[in-house]
Amino acid sequence: MPRVSEDHLAARRRQILDGARRCFAEYGYEQATVRRLEQTIGLSRGAIFHHYRDKDTLFFALAREDAARMAEVAAREGLIQVMRDMLAAPDQFDWLATRLEIARKLRNDPVFHQGWVERSAELASATSARLRQQKQAGRLRDDVPPDVLQCYLDLVLDGLVARLATGEDPQRLSAVLDLVEDSVRATDA
Amino acid sequence: MPRVSEDHLAARRRQILDGARRCFAEYGYEQATVRRLEQTIGLSRGAIFHHYRDKDTLFFALAREDAARMAEVAAREGLIQVMRDMLAAPDQFDWLATRLEIARKLRNDPVFHQGWVERSAELASATSARLRQQKQAGRLRDDVPPDVLQCYLDLVLDGLVARLATGEDPQRLSAVLDLVEDSVRATDA
Repeated sequence: MPRVSEDHLAARRRQILDGARRCFAEYGYEQATVRRLEQTIGLSRGAIFHHYRDKDTLFFALAREDAARMAEVAAREGLIQVMRDMLAAPDQFDWLATRLEIARKLRNDPVFHQGWVERSAELASATSARLRQQKQAGRLRDDVPPDVLQCYLDLVLDGLVARLATGEDPQRLSAVLDLVEDSVRATDA
Repeated sequence: MPRVSEDHLAARRRQILDGARRCFAEYGYEQATVRRLEQTIGLSRGAIFHHYRDKDTLFFALAREDAARMAEVAAREGLIQVMRDMLAAPDQFDWLATRLEIARKLRNDPVFHQGWVERSAELASATSARLRQQKQAGRLRDDVPPDVLQCYLDLVLDGLVARLATGEDPQRLSAVLDLVEDSVRATDA
């Protein structure tokens, strides 16, 4: 095998991740078979799994990309802004729906659960840091423990993804996010 | 074929619905194949589909049972009580997860979407009637339109199912529901 440059390697990985994302978005987690991944990515299974060990590893790599991008926004502007960005990008809905499809696997497969938690850790810690910062600035209600507020926002994120995936009007969901934002604020702020 | 009594017919339908519910709960919507339905129910596909035309019809029958039971609680005590009941029945989590798995199908299959909406109509109208009644009694915040409040509660329901399905602590989710309840109430109530 010829030596490949770093650039070439990065481009190849990009090709694999972009194709896999399209494949998961179109078929859902379970139905994104190795055969379909080959077709969408345009590479053989040998070439794909040389870079990413298996389908789960590939899926986690995409989840980590999402988590990193969302964490950046969450750290700066909070998790509600992450949700507003979701509403503004309808082309992402089909991909987001895979988050719902893996719920059963998360409950029943401890290894998969662990992998998912590790990839989502960056977003969780960005959200938690932002909540602490807002609390210190007196902008957060202080009659509810921070872990409950964080759980509330996580729940709203999952609910938003579910409502979007089933075709709810984004305008109305935007008004719901206003209500959510209002409900975590300090009342005198 | 011998004439069957009404009792016998009802018992047979009950057997089919109970078995199908266990099958969907164990395997998820997509993986609940006809073969697996036969095994869990204990009847041949001929006998099953004599009563329910196909897998979707069977699934909708279960969804309607759920909607009817939830509508009864929602009419009397509101949708948040429906959610508290969910938290108190962990054996239902696996079945509830199928609600998430059908999101993609709801978006991409108009006939399935229509069937689902019809079966869920009873719960939607019970929730909406209860919200109107609470509003008239001055117990509901009136700075947010009722359709936004209803969308908010629907979103929280989906989010709750998702968090439960992924293994979130029910105690913490219960505290989240307190916050949700507080956020739809009139501030002077």
